[in-house]
Amino acid sequence: MSLLVVGSVAFDAVETPFGKRERMLGGSATHFSLAASFFTDVRVVGVVGGDFGEEEFAVFRERGIDTTDLEIVPGGRTFFWRGRYDFDLNTAHTLDTRLNVFADFKPKLSADSRRARLAFLGNIQPDLQVEVREQVAGAEFVALDTMNYWINTVPDAVWDAVRRVHVVIINDAEARQLAGEPILIKAARKILAAGPRALVIKRGEYGAALFTPEAYFATPAYPLESVFDPTGAGDTFAGGFMGYLAAHDSLDEATMRRAMIYGSVLASFNVEEFGTERVRRLTQDEINARFSEFKRMTNFEEIPFERAVRARR
Amino acid sequence: MSLLVVGSVAFDAVETPFGKRERMLGGSATHFSLAASFFTDVRVVGVVGGDFGEEEFAVFRERGIDTTDLEIVPGGRTFFWRGRYDFDLNTAHTLDTRLNVFADFKPKLSADSRRARLAFLGNIQPDLQVEVREQVAGAEFVALDTMNYWINTVPDAVWDAVRRVHVVIINDAEARQLAGEPILIKAARKILAAGPRALVIKRGEYGAALFTPEAYFATPAYPLESVFDPTGAGDTFAGGFMGYLAAHDSLDEATMRRAMIYGSVLASFNVEEFGTERVRRLTQDEINARFSEFKRMTNFEEIPFERAVRARR
Repeated sequence: MSLLVVGSVAFDAVETPFGKRERMLGGSATHFSLAASFFTDVRVVGVVGGDFGEEEFAVFRERGIDTTDLEIVPGGRTFFWRGRYDFDLNTAHTLDTRLNVFADFKPKLSADSRRARLAFLGNIQPDLQVEVREQVAGAEFVALDTMNYWINTVPDAVWDAVRRVHVVIINDAEARQLAGEPILIKAARKILAAGPRALVIKRGEYGAALFTPEAYFATPAYPLESVFDPTGAGDTFAGGFMGYLAAHDSLDEATMRRAMIYGSVLASFNVEEFGTERVRRLTQDEINARFSEFKRMTNFEEIPFERAVRARR
Repeated sequence: MSLLVVGSVAFDAVETPFGKRERMLGGSATHFSLAASFFTDVRVVGVVGGDFGEEEFAVFRERGIDTTDLEIVPGGRTFFWRGRYDFDLNTAHTLDTRLNVFADFKPKLSADSRRARLAFLGNIQPDLQVEVREQVAGAEFVALDTMNYWINTVPDAVWDAVRRVHVVIINDAEARQLAGEPILIKAARKILAAGPRALVIKRGEYGAALFTPEAYFATPAYPLESVFDPTGAGDTFAGGFMGYLAAHDSLDEATMRRAMIYGSVLASFNVEEFGTERVRRLTQDEINARFSEFKRMTNFEEIPFERAVRARR
């Protein structure tokens, strides 16, 4: 089996300067799995309420995503998030969060899920991330996401989870906060010293960076004409990144670099429309075309400069 | 003749979390010309007071920079700026600005300066930029920098200057403000439509981007272990960029892309120490070595992805 994701499956209400949606499919595991499904087989572990209907399940089914381990609590309600973005689309303003059935979420992995080769521990309580990590003990490559809330409230639990994974996928501010170190490269070194073999830094409109003990890789973001809704961009990035890796036998640095670009490609599509709308109808050709655009927009010839001898000063 | 720069030559007092300097050589033309001097002959047009001494002139002379057009007002005092940076080194807090002799600065170009092939109009009053532009009417490639203060107070004058140059080198916020357009790619299109053949966006720790009517190029910044003093980073970038172009006959896009990297390389050195300290003792080998590091840190193989046919869903 290939790639497993544990995280939220939710209904989102989102308002941006460009429009609004009152109730649409969202959640970290949703965005992640849709992105990853372009590269590999994906299984979702999560929980939803009885209000989660056929229409929502169809989104996963259309993309071949396995929802066997998506638990349904018939009398319960699905996790709900309401947020607003102003013209600075980098910052989400949370207006309402109702955990609902997610409050008592205890991830239960089926035998098939436990055999996943790769796993992504979405941004949930770090002790739960550790429990899931123990259930996929044989996984070759496990990544986690976390957030400022957990770093503030249960930093030791976050570090405990970090020590058990191969990759940490967070943003600049989270990395600095986790390490207690304002210089990013020093924060990265501290996080890598705890065990992970790679740290992926998400920078929104500024792109993404990959730190390993041996190297540094960075890519700008795709310059977008229209950013409608940034919700889920980070999870979509992680889905493209992990999905691409899951499709390859070797997880060496060259492969991780291409995975960074595919993650950036998927995230760039995600924000073009509300929620999952754009990624749902994405094609392989569109993905590869934008991958090539990343090459064109970052490429330059390496020609060392030698100053010509000057005739006169 | 090669490259001309018009701008401030100043004394700076700077305090950062890592130390302070009470009086050091600074100013846009200073940082620009030092960076450019690694690639080409540079002439500085500016004004200083009688307090500008042999020690300061020596900095220019050491790097072969022509100060013939650096006017000295014997009874006057040199432009003085005092600023502070907190841990967020992206934002300079101005504590004191004394224009002194710079208040009445009227750039006067010698016959040699008027024959410059390339020119950089540093961040001064836009009407003055236009006056200088008219004095270098035959220049093949002219760039300008500007700032929020001019865009707020004399936007028409800024647009008038923009229309007369080949390249605009500003930051994200300035581009958005100038164009009155929150989406950067649309702001870029509006600025390019006014005449310039390129727009260079400086993004500090996030790198830099180049917009032309045909293409988009972006580079991350060099990841630094220590950022001591960001003062002059933007002008140092512009100096590396324009200096590299001045050393080449063809100013095509491939050359501009490499110029973006050399600009980023020079800026990365500039911020490692206070004021001009690091760039003054920089070597060609250090510059080329870091250029190669930019290649290593941005390079990835372009391999289109084809999902293997799956044995079962």
